[in-house]
Amino acid sequence: MSKVIAINAGSSSLKFQLFDMPKEEVLTKGLVERIGLSDSVFSMLTPAGSTDKEVTNIPDHAVAVQMLLSKLVSKGIVASLDEIDGIGHRVVHGGEAFNDSVLIDEAILAQIEELSELAPLHNPANVTGIRAFQNVLPNIPSIAVFDTAFHQTMPEKSFLYSLPYEYYTKYGIRKYGFHGTSHKYVTERAAQLLGRPIEHLRLISCHLGNGASIAAIDGGKSIDTSMGFTPLAGVPMGTRSGNIDPALMPFIMEKTGQTADEVLDILNKKSGMLGISGLSSDLRDITKAADEGNERAEIALEVFANSIHKYIGSYAARMSGVDAIIFTAGIGENDIASRARILRGLEFMGVYWDSSLNNVRGQEALISYPHSPVKVIVIPTNEEVMIARDVLRLTAI
Amino acid sequence: MSKVIAINAGSSSLKFQLFDMPKEEVLTKGLVERIGLSDSVFSMLTPAGSTDKEVTNIPDHAVAVQMLLSKLVSKGIVASLDEIDGIGHRVVHGGEAFNDSVLIDEAILAQIEELSELAPLHNPANVTGIRAFQNVLPNIPSIAVFDTAFHQTMPEKSFLYSLPYEYYTKYGIRKYGFHGTSHKYVTERAAQLLGRPIEHLRLISCHLGNGASIAAIDGGKSIDTSMGFTPLAGVPMGTRSGNIDPALMPFIMEKTGQTADEVLDILNKKSGMLGISGLSSDLRDITKAADEGNERAEIALEVFANSIHKYIGSYAARMSGVDAIIFTAGIGENDIASRARILRGLEFMGVYWDSSLNNVRGQEALISYPHSPVKVIVIPTNEEVMIARDVLRLTAI
Repeated sequence: MSKVIAINAGSSSLKFQLFDMPKEEVLTKGLVERIGLSDSVFSMLTPAGSTDKEVTNIPDHAVAVQMLLSKLVSKGIVASLDEIDGIGHRVVHGGEAFNDSVLIDEAILAQIEELSELAPLHNPANVTGIRAFQNVLPNIPSIAVFDTAFHQTMPEKSFLYSLPYEYYTKYGIRKYGFHGTSHKYVTERAAQLLGRPIEHLRLISCHLGNGASIAAIDGGKSIDTSMGFTPLAGVPMGTRSGNIDPALMPFIMEKTGQTADEVLDILNKKSGMLGISGLSSDLRDITKAADEGNERAEIALEVFANSIHKYIGSYAARMSGVDAIIFTAGIGENDIASRARILRGLEFMGVYWDSSLNNVRGQEALISYPHSPVKVIVIPTNEEVMIARDVLRLTAI
Repeated sequence: MSKVIAINAGSSSLKFQLFDMPKEEVLTKGLVERIGLSDSVFSMLTPAGSTDKEVTNIPDHAVAVQMLLSKLVSKGIVASLDEIDGIGHRVVHGGEAFNDSVLIDEAILAQIEELSELAPLHNPANVTGIRAFQNVLPNIPSIAVFDTAFHQTMPEKSFLYSLPYEYYTKYGIRKYGFHGTSHKYVTERAAQLLGRPIEHLRLISCHLGNGASIAAIDGGKSIDTSMGFTPLAGVPMGTRSGNIDPALMPFIMEKTGQTADEVLDILNKKSGMLGISGLSSDLRDITKAADEGNERAEIALEVFANSIHKYIGSYAARMSGVDAIIFTAGIGENDIASRARILRGLEFMGVYWDSSLNNVRGQEALISYPHSPVKVIVIPTNEEVMIARDVLRLTAI
């Protein structure tokens, strides 16, 4: 029995979850927001099931970590900090260096920092979180779990862009893919639910949240995914464009007088569902507007579903067929209408379902007919438990 | 009976074909190259079947046109220029203004010139070709046939990018698609060959030449295509990248110190098969190198075929199934090995074929098994005859 913390650090935030392993029981979880800003917010689930929320001044991640640890003791969630045996950190970019989670030491940390070039918004924040724990709990082993690692099994024909080859060798320009921990979790879980060895399954995993990516998982290995060199690529998302004609950036620069970085910012933050609808990046708002007759909201929903629908076709072709399609993350788990739009018209490849089966939210459910050759499954993702499992596997707990 | 010339004018070239209509008999065809450069070359098929080639000084398109017309008479192909009843011009970009070919007058020509903003390399050259004929043969009707027109039936969910909506309304940023005349020809021809009304067919047309695009044609109407705002988008091509992560342009700019336009030039001219292989943009050269053991050549071929293979899956999903897949243009008509790579593993969606059936080049052929639910057909494209047909349809000949 050991207690393990799973951490996801952003530039001004820290998400945490404390597990009792190997039971995988969640002892508490919570979130620190606005770190380094005014009115920081610390919220945490108490053992009684309520949320403890405190607005205070949290100048940096080390203070956030100290606050978290002292609360774990003061709320009686652990008797002492000695009970904590390991910490797992989500790290966005592992480049080609990491095809699995890894025990962190100074050399590893230096590598993660080097990879900041490929993920300038994320890796530095992840490193900040790792260092904060090292300062406060220097003797507890910590591991890094990479969003990219699961996709390192992609073959060259999937990850190589049709660009001058030296862009790959010199600058590391290739498809990396993201959401790997989530795709791995739901596909392993799908194999369990189907009662079949994952080695025998061809799975298409649709991680549809504010960020969204589709992955083709053949025999338990990722062989293709929709995100690319960055999480901007692939399907349209809340505020991200997904794939567009690469000639558009210079055209938009010329038309609007913006720099490439300014246009990139628009592609990341003002495009996607927000861009088309002009209303919101949240599909719930857009669905409400579409139901009230807003045409651009309706088109945004169609563009989103159409793109994912086509990815499912392309990944079925990629694997010469598919055994199950999985929906996960906020939209995938909860948005019944979007799932229906995405699945409609896939009967030709063996996908049979109906709207009563699809009428579920936020829980594991088989939404295809029992006789459907291709199963469709809703599986709530759980990246935190994957992190905790890897702590157990990689440390000598 | 009437004689019609089909013209495809580039910035320094003029391709022509003279038809006897409605028989669709080709009386002659040829090409003028290096117009405005030193050592211009005029080549034309003679009635005897040989090629008449002349290296001379051709300063502009008007001179090229005069030379063409005088040769038609001097070679006895026409008795006098009075026999020529109409001229059809290929025009690359018709924007949203043109969903069909059109009889050219000054207002139309002004519109085509305005659309040069969307096709700065092509439309000005097309206009030069039109004006050259107007100067020499002012009284003969001429029509414009647009590469984009056939794709104007795409619905918004196909043509709209996930960008701020005002980019569409203000700047015309949307998917237009190209190769429309070719996709239209081969899909109409496929319906004839299959003996079924095109209204009942779901077709995937693969135009694979030095430029390449895939189109989903449902009931005779284009509902999606792989090229986009420009012909750079979609599948990797001879020298063009096809789709890449849109975040790559600023990254490459920063790494190489190039401007956006310089990177765009690399995406258009140094990427694709040339970029990956480092050898050539020509699949024949790359195939030879791959056969000799060159690994990057092999990977280039895999990337190319994999991308098209996945498009076929996505467009089958888009139409809830497919009745026939068509291969056309240089690679599609002649590259047996690439067709095999593209088709392999599509049995799950009803595509059955074998390598002896696929062993054909440059001719119409059904390469799927007779019992295959999805037919696969090779059809040499013929954009020129489509232009000639539209001349007949739109002029009062």
